[in-house]
Amino acid sequence: FMATGIPKGTRDFAPKVLAKRNYIFDTIKEVYRRYGFQPLETPAMENLSTLTGKYGDEGDKLLFRILNSGDFLSGVTDTELAQKEAVKLSSKICEKGLRYDLTVPFARYVADNRGEIAFPFKRYQIQPVWRADRPQKGRYREFYQCDADVVGSDSLLNELEIVQMIDDVFSDLDLRVAVKINNRKLLAGIAERIGFPDKIVDITVAIDKLDKIGAENVYKELAERGLTAQAIKDLEPILNIKGNFAEKMELLRNFVGETEIGKRGIAEVETLFGYLDMFSFKAEIELDLTLARGLNYYTGAIFEVKSLEAQMGSICGGGRYDDLTGIFGLKDMSGVGISFGADRIFDVLEQLGKFPEKTLKGIDVLITNFGEKEVAYALPVLKKMRDSGISAVLYPDSSKLKKQMKYADDNSIPYVVLVGDKEIENKTFTLKNMLSGEQQEVSESALISIFTE
Amino acid sequence: FMATGIPKGTRDFAPKVLAKRNYIFDTIKEVYRRYGFQPLETPAMENLSTLTGKYGDEGDKLLFRILNSGDFLSGVTDTELAQKEAVKLSSKICEKGLRYDLTVPFARYVADNRGEIAFPFKRYQIQPVWRADRPQKGRYREFYQCDADVVGSDSLLNELEIVQMIDDVFSDLDLRVAVKINNRKLLAGIAERIGFPDKIVDITVAIDKLDKIGAENVYKELAERGLTAQAIKDLEPILNIKGNFAEKMELLRNFVGETEIGKRGIAEVETLFGYLDMFSFKAEIELDLTLARGLNYYTGAIFEVKSLEAQMGSICGGGRYDDLTGIFGLKDMSGVGISFGADRIFDVLEQLGKFPEKTLKGIDVLITNFGEKEVAYALPVLKKMRDSGISAVLYPDSSKLKKQMKYADDNSIPYVVLVGDKEIENKTFTLKNMLSGEQQEVSESALISIFTE
Repeated sequence: FMATGIPKGTRDFAPKVLAKRNYIFDTIKEVYRRYGFQPLETPAMENLSTLTGKYGDEGDKLLFRILNSGDFLSGVTDTELAQKEAVKLSSKICEKGLRYDLTVPFARYVADNRGEIAFPFKRYQIQPVWRADRPQKGRYREFYQCDADVVGSDSLLNELEIVQMIDDVFSDLDLRVAVKINNRKLLAGIAERIGFPDKIVDITVAIDKLDKIGAENVYKELAERGLTAQAIKDLEPILNIKGNFAEKMELLRNFVGETEIGKRGIAEVETLFGYLDMFSFKAEIELDLTLARGLNYYTGAIFEVKSLEAQMGSICGGGRYDDLTGIFGLKDMSGVGISFGADRIFDVLEQLGKFPEKTLKGIDVLITNFGEKEVAYALPVLKKMRDSGISAVLYPDSSKLKKQMKYADDNSIPYVVLVGDKEIENKTFTLKNMLSGEQQEVSESALISIFTE
Repeated sequence: FMATGIPKGTRDFAPKVLAKRNYIFDTIKEVYRRYGFQPLETPAMENLSTLTGKYGDEGDKLLFRILNSGDFLSGVTDTELAQKEAVKLSSKICEKGLRYDLTVPFARYVADNRGEIAFPFKRYQIQPVWRADRPQKGRYREFYQCDADVVGSDSLLNELEIVQMIDDVFSDLDLRVAVKINNRKLLAGIAERIGFPDKIVDITVAIDKLDKIGAENVYKELAERGLTAQAIKDLEPILNIKGNFAEKMELLRNFVGETEIGKRGIAEVETLFGYLDMFSFKAEIELDLTLARGLNYYTGAIFEVKSLEAQMGSICGGGRYDDLTGIFGLKDMSGVGISFGADRIFDVLEQLGKFPEKTLKGIDVLITNFGEKEVAYALPVLKKMRDSGISAVLYPDSSKLKKQMKYADDNSIPYVVLVGDKEIENKTFTLKNMLSGEQQEVSESALISIFTE
């Protein structure tokens, strides 16, 4: 046998990396907690009947399926086997799959436990998900999602909280970000107004490209995507939308105010921005009509967050959905949720060198081991240090000093306590600062105070 | 579509249960941290080449296998398919499996990263594992393990730390336990001494039954298991071993002192108990020759912990293994490890009602919502509460007071802030204690102080 590595697209998280990741998770968790979101965990495996059909055909292909245990072929006929149809056969030999996101398991949980849940239900969930995507830089087959959702309330106060949480998380992480906000109903109103209600995505994608490729190319692309010349002409004021929030809203009111859905979109955006106006934010907050994420899913507000300091895709996103649990038989459950992209946030913090000192800290102190007598002298103070909350290790073997010092260095341990004949005689300990090289001989109580104060 | 439930043997963890579980995990983590163990996380999926053959034939059957993505049948011949041999076919259509424990992934990690690790390497790992066991009360197909191991040192100081950590964890959890300690080398010496070196397990199982079935029945059972009358006679002093630690050791010295392995076992036990004598423990610590866990795996000390207050199997166990990473090509890596059984510890704490108050606490306070005006008045104080670390929610809809109070009750929220015309006029807030029913009208700063002091 030899080392066999790990499946592609998966990662081991070594202690130093994990400490940084936990800093991100803990920051998000603490904000979720303050806003009254409660933790939930669901199993890694869900029944495939829960998962399939929820993420489109492409998503179904990316589900990791778990082979039934025991004689998984017992229910398969010879004819079915001989046909060698992978998709069909997989549904015969696999009943379970790994969760693909946290939203569907959450919806399943809410539907399953509707009788016990007090709505509106605010839950957060930080767990890994698995996707059989082709691995590439920044895309993994196992990665964590950090979701918070509230279901059972259509109040726009929930949207306000989403923006406040985004602002809190990124200011706690010391990251400057822009929060882009759009509303699916506005986009629906625009598409309806120009006579192409089913072209919402094409229109928003086109608007998004305006800066990069210019108006003429956008018009060409819209024509290729099936819009008539008249519709493209009608869309012009939206493509050229400029100005502050009030000016944009004025134009939108004139443009989509006559469509039922557009009117509702305008009202929602005005209410939300009215709430937002009551607070000051560290993040830049803007209405962005080019934002089109997850349109087949969201029904109201849409959120996306970008770093203002690093080149990186969206680092957080979310929105409102009007029927999350309907697929599981529980109707009329409006919800709004947010998801932080921990891997990208990690990369931004790393790029900017913004992980705080304390997250890099592991073991506080190493006590040297020069033999049985020294160990017997060191064991009681070691125990006292640990009882005081200090992360302390005694080198377990009486190796050469050089080796023990190298161990402290390799593990980034900032202090070493030297215990030899002199210290035993003086009833002291010599504390060495590994960074400065400075040494001082101190009493037991002084030694502990140095770390606890 | 309707709610589909979850796979049997798996669990959803609702907020209140999860808070209790996290109390256990956090307590264990904090002890591991103080003893200088660093966190590690490995992927849920490992290559099957890493997993198979490590847990015996029975273990191989209990591995969850993951179907290769895409056309998993492409590498399978028609002949292979027609044979319908489940085991053979599974190895053709599955390359990955879910991890079965944390020990093998740890060994794989150490072997893969031998060049970067500073040994002795102390790591802890708290992650779920999956086994296709038949689910039953207290046995799950997905459950968490909480392991700490140190590899690369054969010093018995590591064994001392294991016992200290056990004592710290259970005294932090306010649980009274017995720590049973044995040594595989002692058992090997006993078996060798009576001429049946391969009957270690049979002998220890027999010793274990002595109290329950009596000496005569144990002798009968040993005979059935293949021991000769002479061997059984020779074993009598061990079966009847009594007295304190010194007396037991005296008898053992006479009994196995002549075998090489027994002599080493005696030396190890004496050294470890010498270290243990330097400290006082809350746990009861005893040498227990009936302890036989994982004998095909451990090579030195063996540990097991039992509750002294609740009827429950082993709630923690571990031991020393001399060749953890050898299967992955890295020889001579002695290690010692421990694993806490979180599910059983949970059940013990629940049975004894020993989860502390604070773990049951969720949201601190609910602010009522009587309309837009009241919301506008409440939003700033809500933000200030959250900025002060208070877990606070504003009821998102202006529903009837009764409904809002019921929501506070259902979510075990201990305080409600009432905001109406009177409070707005007086620039105050009315705080209601949901347990006592008591109400008081307070200023904004007083309101926040009540929660933060």
